[in-house]
Amino acid sequence: MTDLVTFGETMALFAARRTGPLRFARDFDLGLGGAESNVAIGVSRLGHDVTWVGRVGDDEFGELIASTLRAERVDARAIPDPDAPTGLMIKGRRTADLIDVRYYRKDSAGSRLSPADLDPALIAGARALHVSAITPALSPSARAAVRHAIDAARAAGVLVSLDVNYRKALWTREEAGAWLRSVIADVDVVFATEDEARLIADTDDPDDPVALAKALGPRHVLLKFGARGAMELSDDQVRHAEPYKVTEVDPVGAGDAFAAGWLADWLAGADPDRRLRTACAAGAFAVTSQGDWESLPRRADLDLLRPTSEGVSR
Amino acid sequence: MTDLVTFGETMALFAARRTGPLRFARDFDLGLGGAESNVAIGVSRLGHDVTWVGRVGDDEFGELIASTLRAERVDARAIPDPDAPTGLMIKGRRTADLIDVRYYRKDSAGSRLSPADLDPALIAGARALHVSAITPALSPSARAAVRHAIDAARAAGVLVSLDVNYRKALWTREEAGAWLRSVIADVDVVFATEDEARLIADTDDPDDPVALAKALGPRHVLLKFGARGAMELSDDQVRHAEPYKVTEVDPVGAGDAFAAGWLADWLAGADPDRRLRTACAAGAFAVTSQGDWESLPRRADLDLLRPTSEGVSR
Amino acid sequence: MTDLVTFGETMALFAARRTGPLRFARDFDLGLGGAESNVAIGVSRLGHDVTWVGRVGDDEFGELIASTLRAERVDARAIPDPDAPTGLMIKGRRTADLIDVRYYRKDSAGSRLSPADLDPALIAGARALHVSAITPALSPSARAAVRHAIDAARAAGVLVSLDVNYRKALWTREEAGAWLRSVIADVDVVFATEDEARLIADTDDPDDPVALAKALGPRHVLLKFGARGAMELSDDQVRHAEPYKVTEVDPVGAGDAFAAGWLADWLAGADPDRRLRTACAAGAFAVTSQGDWESLPRRADLDLLRPTSEGVSR
Amino acid sequence: MTDLVTFGETMALFAARRTGPLRFARDFDLGLGGAESNVAIGVSRLGHDVTWVGRVGDDEFGELIASTLRAERVDARAIPDPDAPTGLMIKGRRTADLIDVRYYRKDSAGSRLSPADLDPALIAGARALHVSAITPALSPSARAAVRHAIDAARAAGVLVSLDVNYRKALWTREEAGAWLRSVIADVDVVFATEDEARLIADTDDPDDPVALAKALGPRHVLLKFGARGAMELSDDQVRHAEPYKVTEVDPVGAGDAFAAGWLADWLAGADPDRRLRTACAAGAFAVTSQGDWESLPRRADLDLLRPTSEGVSR
Amino acid sequence: MTDLVTFGETMALFAARRTGPLRFARDFDLGLGGAESNVAIGVSRLGHDVTWVGRVGDDEFGELIASTLRAERVDARAIPDPDAPTGLMIKGRRTADLIDVRYYRKDSAGSRLSPADLDPALIAGARALHVSAITPALSPSARAAVRHAIDAARAAGVLVSLDVNYRKALWTREEAGAWLRSVIADVDVVFATEDEARLIADTDDPDDPVALAKALGPRHVLLKFGARGAMELSDDQVRHAEPYKVTEVDPVGAGDAFAAGWLADWLAGADPDRRLRTACAAGAFAVTSQGDWESLPRRADLDLLRPTSEGVSR
Amino acid sequence: MTDLVTFGETMALFAARRTGPLRFARDFDLGLGGAESNVAIGVSRLGHDVTWVGRVGDDEFGELIASTLRAERVDARAIPDPDAPTGLMIKGRRTADLIDVRYYRKDSAGSRLSPADLDPALIAGARALHVSAITPALSPSARAAVRHAIDAARAAGVLVSLDVNYRKALWTREEAGAWLRSVIADVDVVFATEDEARLIADTDDPDDPVALAKALGPRHVLLKFGARGAMELSDDQVRHAEPYKVTEVDPVGAGDAFAAGWLADWLAGADPDRRLRTACAAGAFAVTSQGDWESLPRRADLDLLRPTSEGVSR
Repeated sequence: MTDLVTFGETMALFAARRTGPLRFARDFDLGLGGAESNVAIGVSRLGHDVTWVGRVGDDEFGELIASTLRAERVDARAIPDPDAPTGLMIKGRRTADLIDVRYYRKDSAGSRLSPADLDPALIAGARALHVSAITPALSPSARAAVRHAIDAARAAGVLVSLDVNYRKALWTREEAGAWLRSVIADVDVVFATEDEARLIADTDDPDDPVALAKALGPRHVLLKFGARGAMELSDDQVRHAEPYKVTEVDPVGAGDAFAAGWLADWLAGADPDRRLRTACAAGAFAVTSQGDWESLPRRADLDLLRPTSEGVSR
Repeated sequence: MTDLVTFGETMALFAARRTGPLRFARDFDLGLGGAESNVAIGVSRLGHDVTWVGRVGDDEFGELIASTLRAERVDARAIPDPDAPTGLMIKGRRTADLIDVRYYRKDSAGSRLSPADLDPALIAGARALHVSAITPALSPSARAAVRHAIDAARAAGVLVSLDVNYRKALWTREEAGAWLRSVIADVDVVFATEDEARLIADTDDPDDPVALAKALGPRHVLLKFGARGAMELSDDQVRHAEPYKVTEVDPVGAGDAFAAGWLADWLAGADPDRRLRTACAAGAFAVTSQGDWESLPRRADLDLLRPTSEGVSR
Repeated sequence: MTDLVTFGETMALFAARRTGPLRFARDFDLGLGGAESNVAIGVSRLGHDVTWVGRVGDDEFGELIASTLRAERVDARAIPDPDAPTGLMIKGRRTADLIDVRYYRKDSAGSRLSPADLDPALIAGARALHVSAITPALSPSARAAVRHAIDAARAAGVLVSLDVNYRKALWTREEAGAWLRSVIADVDVVFATEDEARLIADTDDPDDPVALAKALGPRHVLLKFGARGAMELSDDQVRHAEPYKVTEVDPVGAGDAFAAGWLADWLAGADPDRRLRTACAAGAFAVTSQGDWESLPRRADLDLLRPTSEGVSR
Repeated sequence: MTDLVTFGETMALFAARRTGPLRFARDFDLGLGGAESNVAIGVSRLGHDVTWVGRVGDDEFGELIASTLRAERVDARAIPDPDAPTGLMIKGRRTADLIDVRYYRKDSAGSRLSPADLDPALIAGARALHVSAITPALSPSARAAVRHAIDAARAAGVLVSLDVNYRKALWTREEAGAWLRSVIADVDVVFATEDEARLIADTDDPDDPVALAKALGPRHVLLKFGARGAMELSDDQVRHAEPYKVTEVDPVGAGDAFAAGWLADWLAGADPDRRLRTACAAGAFAVTSQGDWESLPRRADLDLLRPTSEGVSR
Repeated sequence: MTDLVTFGETMALFAARRTGPLRFARDFDLGLGGAESNVAIGVSRLGHDVTWVGRVGDDEFGELIASTLRAERVDARAIPDPDAPTGLMIKGRRTADLIDVRYYRKDSAGSRLSPADLDPALIAGARALHVSAITPALSPSARAAVRHAIDAARAAGVLVSLDVNYRKALWTREEAGAWLRSVIADVDVVFATEDEARLIADTDDPDDPVALAKALGPRHVLLKFGARGAMELSDDQVRHAEPYKVTEVDPVGAGDAFAAGWLADWLAGADPDRRLRTACAAGAFAVTSQGDWESLPRRADLDLLRPTSEGVSR
Repeated sequence: MTDLVTFGETMALFAARRTGPLRFARDFDLGLGGAESNVAIGVSRLGHDVTWVGRVGDDEFGELIASTLRAERVDARAIPDPDAPTGLMIKGRRTADLIDVRYYRKDSAGSRLSPADLDPALIAGARALHVSAITPALSPSARAAVRHAIDAARAAGVLVSLDVNYRKALWTREEAGAWLRSVIADVDVVFATEDEARLIADTDDPDDPVALAKALGPRHVLLKFGARGAMELSDDQVRHAEPYKVTEVDPVGAGDAFAAGWLADWLAGADPDRRLRTACAAGAFAVTSQGDWESLPRRADLDLLRPTSEGVSR
């Protein structure tokens, strides 16, 4: 039995140690990254059982992904694909403030995920399913896998969580918007930036976060404002969360951490104010060190950081 | 002849190069640290003769400590203990703003310091003795050594300087407070944060720095406010020092540097305004680079930094 | 159900990057090491289910150990001890040919292992138990734990494997010999160097490996000759294994790898010639890279290396 | 045919990786630096043909300089000098905010530049000549070379650009001032800080930038105010440029980048507002990464940064 | 005018710093590699004009390739492909003796080379054309490009040089053999290992190098025996070259260096004995440092190494 | 009182971390080196009091030298020269077997040593004086200083030790030979390679080490054969020492270590066989790690290495 099922593509990640044009970086660290596995690690560290499903190459990078997820107590169903390699991310910084990410994921093992890889019984046995809108952009079979998983969750009454995570390198705003609108009615929780929300929502006042959130539809809408905090619209109640003040080292992974914090507290049955605060705290931890997920907090860590004011207001 | 005698435990120090949970740090630098040896180096760099006494293991880390202190012109009486290893510190950062220090110092050579290690004639021949309240928390023999040294200094009219340096990993507030109150009447100079001062002082207005300083008792009381500067109460006169504005790289060692700056200028017979400014400048240098003492200033360096305003006001 | 149970102390390991006196090493890598967990990883990589039991501190290093073993598919029962820290190893090289290892393991969590930590049912459900003679040297409770485990294995007909692993820093030859002789009759497989074998065996011809092996007693005796290969005496048949010729990077862990290779092939029911060759190959892999266990082979890797001649002769 | 000719001394550069006193730096990166070659690279990246002339040692560092400039599409006329080595720079930071640069350039190959090294036809065939007031401070022959080049440019109607770049390690303010005043009438564009401008200008109101600029004389005067932006006086019109807000990693090279941006847009015939904005943007890029020139922008990069307000006002 | 034209795919190269399974490598250096560009650099360093043609991505890695080749005085015609990224190599060592190379080059920019990218006039104006049998394995258009180039060279009487460079990751022995046999009649110089020669040659005595060489056909046949030296069959005369004795750091690139040495001396009109010795010396240099080409020799370097005996015998 | 006085130039040392042409080295370690200070450290580590005299710049590198020597218990009289910088060495490896050292020491502080820097009373109070023939090649004043020191030693009956240390970058064989012949009669111990001995000795049989040694003249002649061991001719008795077998990491400093071992045992009054063995052991340690002196042995280390046979034969 698992609390949360998630799936997607996780890649080996070469991260440049220095700021500047990538061709001058010279020293790189090997790690791994993937939106859904970041969420899986985050929820696992906060105390829940998580299953992650994904395809990896039958290679060292695939083993790196599988073993790292096991290390993090994630039930990693890393399906080795004999016909395609593990995808790669190359991450640098053009300046201290400009992240530069490139992918080698076309026809990668991870992009070859298909409905057959996702056992409906696994999903039905969980309490929540988390997907991102990166997966449908990877391949037709991956897109079908997302639909298949959402259907399995709906049929079993399992909570469906979606992080929009729009990636312009993978598809256009029009393509993404069309797909997102095709699934939004089947989603219980959606995580988005304001700009991502506008891919889905049809509202007369797209600059008003509350109007935007209401136009999205799901029961729980989480809007992320970056360094300005976040907002939740749940059951028609609006909550605003103050940001945590931390020295930012690497912003990548903050959104995944936010989703992980929220889902972990939903699984824990925490009250909504605390749930939103946990989401913000997890997001704050994510930016405090290099690496997309290494700094994610355990429960005991959450009190190490303090929000700039009381945290959540209604 | 030496100007200042100090003693205590100095440890080998493994410092993580990256921010994040220590288990992901992977790359560490080997160095050394110890509150009193940091002060010894600081006073030596500012031009005075300093003797440091301490026990070290008969091992490479003990030799690292002894040779580094010699390099810094400290007369290092590093007594090799055949029966115990040199203690260790492991230093990392959970986030850029949260230092994480662990010790392997239980039953270490340094903790086995005893009165017999401290020659009263050495202390009587100096102009000042500096101790920290870390040493009495290490072992009964180390506690006796501090008492022994203070008595030798009092008997010879040597200035007694005490840095409170409360370490909650070593003893409780109650234990520390009891010990501090047992020696404070024999102390001429005390360095403390406000919170540390409250371990000792009994005052109706513990949030008023001046009242707190007066309640402590010694002729020279130095209260440190971190990034907000410092205050001195000497001979019933209060002085406030503006902080120096520097980019902080590593806060560890700032208090030791402050004490070193103050003691060096007391030894030099500097006027009180300048003495307090030197203390603040030394503290500012300490935070500008990794390592607890490497960045401490020489006299010629002091003018490289500027306080945020005129520096000291009365 | 597990194939092999093992237990002992695993430590965080700071490994110097450069050759020379440790005080000049400056750059260290953080990893972990422990004789029995090295064996656990080795057997797991070769395809069997392994359970490792040990105490660790309730700290980052304890989590490093637990998560790394999980990553390697070892069922890691890392019992967090709230009262003691994870032990440490510091590993350097005085010269390219002289390894220099120091421990900070006195009163460590790992040394506090006790019989209550080892569930007899766990051992009874396995096919083999592996212990090293490091554990009895750590503490009386750890010594009792080894006896307790061997008794549980004997009672259930589980194979008992012992690696002598004599550590002069922990006990004298006399102490080690006495303990070894007290358990050797209950052991089915023993791994030893010739010098270690002489701690146990009483023979007129201690320089004759065959005589030495026969004097030891267990059904399977494995004598390791370092770069000169190995010998097995099993069921009165002697086999000699040629060494593999590889460029040695770090010899630490070779003995553990040898034991892992042998045990994995015993579990797999391999024929004795092949079993001994696998042991040698695993030992050869162990020395090819820094780190005590990182380079251990998977089944598919075994063919990457070639013995210097046909490998095993009788 | 080349658009811009520049010349001077370029040195191999050892840059310390850590902040603190240089003797504790231990890890250094090898690179190269030189005011005029920084400008050459900057103008080349922005799309123009640039020729750099200089002497280098017949050694690895000379080849490092020549090959790096070729890599950057600069026509590098690196004249190998058989009798002198390539000069060196050692760059560290005493604190995060205090750069510490030392030179080993006395009698270096680069300082032996002479008029014969500069073909007047090369200069006459270009559209602009850029010199810095570092070169005349290196040696009498280098000083003659600058004069020779300016004369060749004047004779051919080629724009003469001068960056004051005062280096107190090389000559006194009086020496520098005398030389600068001897050439300023032959200069079309001058780049200076306010303090540098005061080396040349004779004005009653030296604290008024506009008065200072007018007193300098050349048709284009560029005053740089560091983090407070810049000012241009061209054809009697004053323009103020807002600074770009970036996280500063290394300030060295910002002035060279500014000059490169301005010259590139002058060569491109850009309108003056845009030209000044390009200069500021190039300067901003220069400080975003370690290295004096590595982070300089290509045309396509310029839009990655945004000025703090609309950029240029009149 | 150029002396040598070559073309093919050059990739960005992430090279692991440590020996062991790639997933533990963690630290990587960014560089670049490609068989033909290695040859281009080698010939350029030995004093000839070389043109390299290839497609690269319109990305940082493409610019890394182009700028590095310019640095090495190679006329680099790096055609930026807007539709495909620069290919990648990941290079590690499973053990000190086992290189582990993986590619991300499927559909890469480099593999999209086509006949239109190769101007026949460029080839006709050179004295030699060098190709490898890697290129025909990349794509049909790349295969056509090789044929196109050979035809252009034949038509113009330009020497055609072929390095077999069999890559089993790209095609089968049968596929490679078929292609090689289709071009061998149009080749003037062929470089091969014995095993590679057997892909082409039909001989009754495939273990006799001389027979093998004769069966290949071209006027110049170079057989490489690794650490055992090399053999040349030219104009029916057989020469044997002793290997150079050097400490091997990285064997990758040795074959390319050998070809570069031979071609450079052919271009220089050196006598055949010396030409073969230069080829061996260049190959020896290639293995002395990490990186596929960085250590290639200039003319003045050739005398730094000495062959194990007199070098070449007939 | 000191046992040994030595003097000369010690430089800051940038050592490349990688093998290959220096321009690709990129990562450098900062350290220090100098033939005489290497000897000073070596003798100090073996238990004697040593004074080193030399000029250094009034800069960070000068402080690095002074503090490092103090750390090694050498009485370092590092005279800061306000008018010249500390000299530099750049050390790399063209191949694993070819060290590449460059100097920036012309007009350096160290080369400005003069007779006035060497107090005759200091020398007269010692038991031995050690000089190298590097110093006379630095400048006329340095040459005079050596003469001055030798005269002071002769006058006081202090042992005069000379290491030939011929540096072709500093002077010709003729110049060196003339100077050496001018002092050899005043020397008690000379250290030389066979090739260096031929700079001085006039013998009919220059290839016979014994004849060569006899022709040199001093009471103690030490001939070093590198990896083939060494020979001593003392008081007409010839001794041959077997080399120690160690894995060589960096050969620089081996000769200095040899001299240090010999001198330390001469000071200790060891018997000649042992003295020669100590010299060889110290030389062996020197090559086992990077750095010219860091790996030099203490007395307790000497037994860690073993000569290839019994060590010394007569």
